[in-house]
Amino acid sequence: MRAARYYDRKDIRIEDIEAPVAGAGEVLIDVAWCGICGTDLHEYLDGPIFVPPAGHPHPISGESAPVTLGHEMSGTVAALGEGVTDLEVGQHVVVEPYIIHEEYYGKENYQLSPDMNFIGLGGRGGGLAEQIAVDRHWVHPISEKVGLDEAALIEPLSVAHHAVSRSEAAAGDVAIIGGAGPIGVLTAAVLKALDITVIVSELSELRRQKALETGVADYAFDPRDVDVAEEVRKLTDGKGADVGFEATSVDVVLNMLFDAVRPGGVIVNESIWGHRPEADLATLVLKELDLRGTIGYSFDHAATIKLVEEGKIDLKPFITGKIGLDGLIDEGFDTLINRNETAVKILVSPSGKGL
Amino acid sequence: MRAARYYDRKDIRIEDIEAPVAGAGEVLIDVAWCGICGTDLHEYLDGPIFVPPAGHPHPISGESAPVTLGHEMSGTVAALGEGVTDLEVGQHVVVEPYIIHEEYYGKENYQLSPDMNFIGLGGRGGGLAEQIAVDRHWVHPISEKVGLDEAALIEPLSVAHHAVSRSEAAAGDVAIIGGAGPIGVLTAAVLKALDITVIVSELSELRRQKALETGVADYAFDPRDVDVAEEVRKLTDGKGADVGFEATSVDVVLNMLFDAVRPGGVIVNESIWGHRPEADLATLVLKELDLRGTIGYSFDHAATIKLVEEGKIDLKPFITGKIGLDGLIDEGFDTLINRNETAVKILVSPSGKGL
Repeated sequence: MRAARYYDRKDIRIEDIEAPVAGAGEVLIDVAWCGICGTDLHEYLDGPIFVPPAGHPHPISGESAPVTLGHEMSGTVAALGEGVTDLEVGQHVVVEPYIIHEEYYGKENYQLSPDMNFIGLGGRGGGLAEQIAVDRHWVHPISEKVGLDEAALIEPLSVAHHAVSRSEAAAGDVAIIGGAGPIGVLTAAVLKALDITVIVSELSELRRQKALETGVADYAFDPRDVDVAEEVRKLTDGKGADVGFEATSVDVVLNMLFDAVRPGGVIVNESIWGHRPEADLATLVLKELDLRGTIGYSFDHAATIKLVEEGKIDLKPFITGKIGLDGLIDEGFDTLINRNETAVKILVSPSGKGL
Repeated sequence: MRAARYYDRKDIRIEDIEAPVAGAGEVLIDVAWCGICGTDLHEYLDGPIFVPPAGHPHPISGESAPVTLGHEMSGTVAALGEGVTDLEVGQHVVVEPYIIHEEYYGKENYQLSPDMNFIGLGGRGGGLAEQIAVDRHWVHPISEKVGLDEAALIEPLSVAHHAVSRSEAAAGDVAIIGGAGPIGVLTAAVLKALDITVIVSELSELRRQKALETGVADYAFDPRDVDVAEEVRKLTDGKGADVGFEATSVDVVLNMLFDAVRPGGVIVNESIWGHRPEADLATLVLKELDLRGTIGYSFDHAATIKLVEEGKIDLKPFITGKIGLDGLIDEGFDTLINRNETAVKILVSPSGKGL
């Protein structure tokens, strides 16, 4: 079968490799769609980061580069391994792509367990291949009412869902999101589905438009034009937002959130920092804010799938491109790297059947 | 009566002013002891900060400089104002020295309410005077089994208690405290009283000794000698501390805590930052840490007083000096500013009767 294999920085190859088989307790999946994630771009431009470099096998998967890429996948069950009796061939599924020690399966904060990595980065195949065999534990069925293309967005939407869970935001609250890139808008989508008012701060006019047109943001401000924290206070009777989300890795955005969130409020840091920001912790102290990290997802897939199945989140507007495996670098990565304002999520059909 | 009055930076005067009377709903207190707080030093060296400058009256107290200083006070009830029937003259009391709008009295997060300030900084008299009249709401009785000198430390101990409450630490947990100054050691005292293991990181040998000798720390490390985070991991089976406390306002200490606390753990920021630290938020994200601000106290006095009344915290070792009002600057402030390693808490007897 054909697969996108990560060898090293700027070295991803489309190759023919042996197709996997479903071992005991595993599910063989015909991959329908696999999204390209910002993490994939980081591996391509600056990696290996999550990918275990050649000669340094991951302690759980035992694999190192080259590995198959892709962790945002949907597909249909192609075969069931021994002992898997609660799924059917042909069923639509998505994958929660964790590689963790089995002793942590189902345990609280399993996403924080030692040596955690991701399928499609740390080994165990990937979604940028025609097939993948996945431990039943990480396979989530999804209704056929949801398109398989939309289903490929369940993974990044689960990231957003986990961030929202970390914020403890509730219906009626007001949220301010710094950054309306893919994670920012999906966070907005989850918040709106939970009846939370969403205010977005974003430099890009195209992204602001997208957030407003899709209805996931109630207000979108350009921080060059207005004092966003002041606008948030105007919209909240001077009080400030209940929760904030940092999705930019930019110091000034982080500090805007410290200003914009009300005393006693929560800020969730979704972005991965490449530097140490100069953080306005005096304000964190005086307002008793909580700044919370969030990584991946933890028991979030079921609730996330339900929001989409019930129609509370429409993922279609966030699919901005569909390509084949051969276009991965030229059409996929290049668009996301060089014209990222226009793209939210580009999906790859590894078999080409979806195109 | 005699009182220490804050006029401006480096201008505190011991003056004779009119004694207060207990208005309706108020309690007149003969001040026994009043501690000197780091905040008082900040006002003296860099203020006015909390003190409303002359001509800029505080919106609640209506007062501006000069104001009477001192907010860490104990004393005996001298008289009861109209309507106060649940206290007796001669009873020992401490003051929770808030100035807040009455509509927030008893409400959740009253410490974060708009225009919040402190008695002894924002007006309404202060503990560095022979008497003070305080709204009954802020007067807490304390058993005569507790010395009035120790009782003057209930206020800073309540700050520590609130920080510990914010951490949600529980019996059996392990805590790492960055800094064993007054707030650091009192935080350690509260943690120990709750059966939490305490590890301290502190540059000063005298302070490390004090923390160990008083039994409030189980381990004390010099961060110049060892990698404190690594020592914490050694003491916790590689896991890391459950909670951390930042009590230094030093970037490297904050970032040590991000390293030393376990995934999913909590760090409480007790220090007031004069600059924006370069914070290792990548670690906060990847370990899903919570960084929480804490300011003052909120429903903490009753529990704090109980810990001291029950003998779970012995405050005597933290009283390192007793002086009269005339020695406030030369003996009090100067010691705390120039020889602060040797001093934890210096108490002032405004009437001189305690000396």
